[in-house]
Amino acid sequence: MEIVDHPREMQEVALAWRQQHQTISFVPTMGYFHEGHLSLMRYGRKQGDRLVVSLFVNPTQFGPGEDLDRYPRDPERDAALAREVGVDVLYTPTAAQMYPEGYQTYVTVEEVSRGLCGATRPGHFRGVATVVLKLFNQVLPHLAVFGEKDYQQLAVIKRMVSDLDMPVEVVGRPIVREADGLAMSSRNTYLNPKERRAALGLFKALTWAKDAAASGENQADKIVPEVIQTIKSAPHTRLDYAVLVDPDTLQSVDTVQGSARLAVAAWVGDTRLIDNMLLEVP
Amino acid sequence: MEIVDHPREMQEVALAWRQQHQTISFVPTMGYFHEGHLSLMRYGRKQGDRLVVSLFVNPTQFGPGEDLDRYPRDPERDAALAREVGVDVLYTPTAAQMYPEGYQTYVTVEEVSRGLCGATRPGHFRGVATVVLKLFNQVLPHLAVFGEKDYQQLAVIKRMVSDLDMPVEVVGRPIVREADGLAMSSRNTYLNPKERRAALGLFKALTWAKDAAASGENQADKIVPEVIQTIKSAPHTRLDYAVLVDPDTLQSVDTVQGSARLAVAAWVGDTRLIDNMLLEVP
Repeated sequence: MEIVDHPREMQEVALAWRQQHQTISFVPTMGYFHEGHLSLMRYGRKQGDRLVVSLFVNPTQFGPGEDLDRYPRDPERDAALAREVGVDVLYTPTAAQMYPEGYQTYVTVEEVSRGLCGATRPGHFRGVATVVLKLFNQVLPHLAVFGEKDYQQLAVIKRMVSDLDMPVEVVGRPIVREADGLAMSSRNTYLNPKERRAALGLFKALTWAKDAAASGENQADKIVPEVIQTIKSAPHTRLDYAVLVDPDTLQSVDTVQGSARLAVAAWVGDTRLIDNMLLEVP
Repeated sequence: MEIVDHPREMQEVALAWRQQHQTISFVPTMGYFHEGHLSLMRYGRKQGDRLVVSLFVNPTQFGPGEDLDRYPRDPERDAALAREVGVDVLYTPTAAQMYPEGYQTYVTVEEVSRGLCGATRPGHFRGVATVVLKLFNQVLPHLAVFGEKDYQQLAVIKRMVSDLDMPVEVVGRPIVREADGLAMSSRNTYLNPKERRAALGLFKALTWAKDAAASGENQADKIVPEVIQTIKSAPHTRLDYAVLVDPDTLQSVDTVQGSARLAVAAWVGDTRLIDNMLLEVP
């Protein structure tokens, strides 16, 4: 495994691979790998001749007062795990290389970025879209793999790639959960033992909703209030949102027509967690 | 010469060329070709194995009340001229293909888009940056050739390509002028004979400034007021702006340090014309 830390060098490596007709899989990450990241890497490993994983804690997607400074980092452990999975290049640019002095170009995906996390984190998805577009131009992947846990992020990127005619296929992969159901997240490390237990409220609420839908309940006004109640009743927990949305546009729906995505966010203690689940009505 | 009218087909042609290790030159245009366009095509023809010229009157770079509906068009003459120059693909997408229903992604280049034409035409450079990024993703050029007449456009695109790490070289080529000095523009066709004569005021003002700089004048407050006076005194003419700017950032300068760009815009009758010139102080 090679570690590349400069955008221009990364692009040269990618262009050389493409000259040799090799296909490139890409998994963009902010590091501090857990089984969720590794599942994306293993998928990418199988799909392409070459696998690039980027590790970049992107400052432009953090708002003022968010956790940029304390975001967990462990580059050596990350490198060891990436090597085990068979990553060809671990790409680790710095903020100064990504956003040199005079930097001034941003990509906005309008409707899909509004609501949900976009409402609570203004500017977040502009930062995400911009950095992902830059990373795609540096890594030149044929396939890019994202986790479904950041469901709105995935929808924003799919829309961007389609709108801007980027020659890359974007794939979303299932959420990986802890044994008790908590969605894996680098931010889970912020939780103390009491909060860790309380954080299960999200999964409990989503699972209840999934079962209700499977039993034939298709009305948002029956499902969502119960989900909100379940999350609110968990200790140490403050609800941000719980919404039933169209899987592509993320517009909220009144009725589950076949399937819909239930997306939730809450603070548990000081830690903001998100999760989501596919609801299917038979 | 092949005429391609669908983005996906264009991208497939470009990907196939790249698989065959052919280099691609690209000249994006809004059609109604004059010698300025043709000079860009001839340059592109020499630099790459393949030459693509796009012809697309991009609606998102026109403001309300601007000349989108009456912008001059002559696709058959354009095709004949492109064929003569040796264009491989004339790419003619429609607005419905470029901006299908649900389209919502835009690229903004912040500082360079402000001022000059950006002040008079809000949203114009957002439209330009977005369509050029899309065209680059469709045509996948190694080299893209633009005219220096749209000087701010060129600066916006260079900045965008650099900021977003796009793997393409952007080249600006000199303004082509009529025998009497008027900068060639598809919009010159709007001018009636009196306006056509009056339009020379821009060139006269720029030429005076170039000579003044060549004679050692380096103070903006000596150069710019005289330029404004010359343009304002031309008949049928209403000044938009006349500014002496840094060639890359387009920030206005007080002193010409070696060289600077003098950019002007004015309405002659109802037609908005732009022009610019490099000033060099010995």
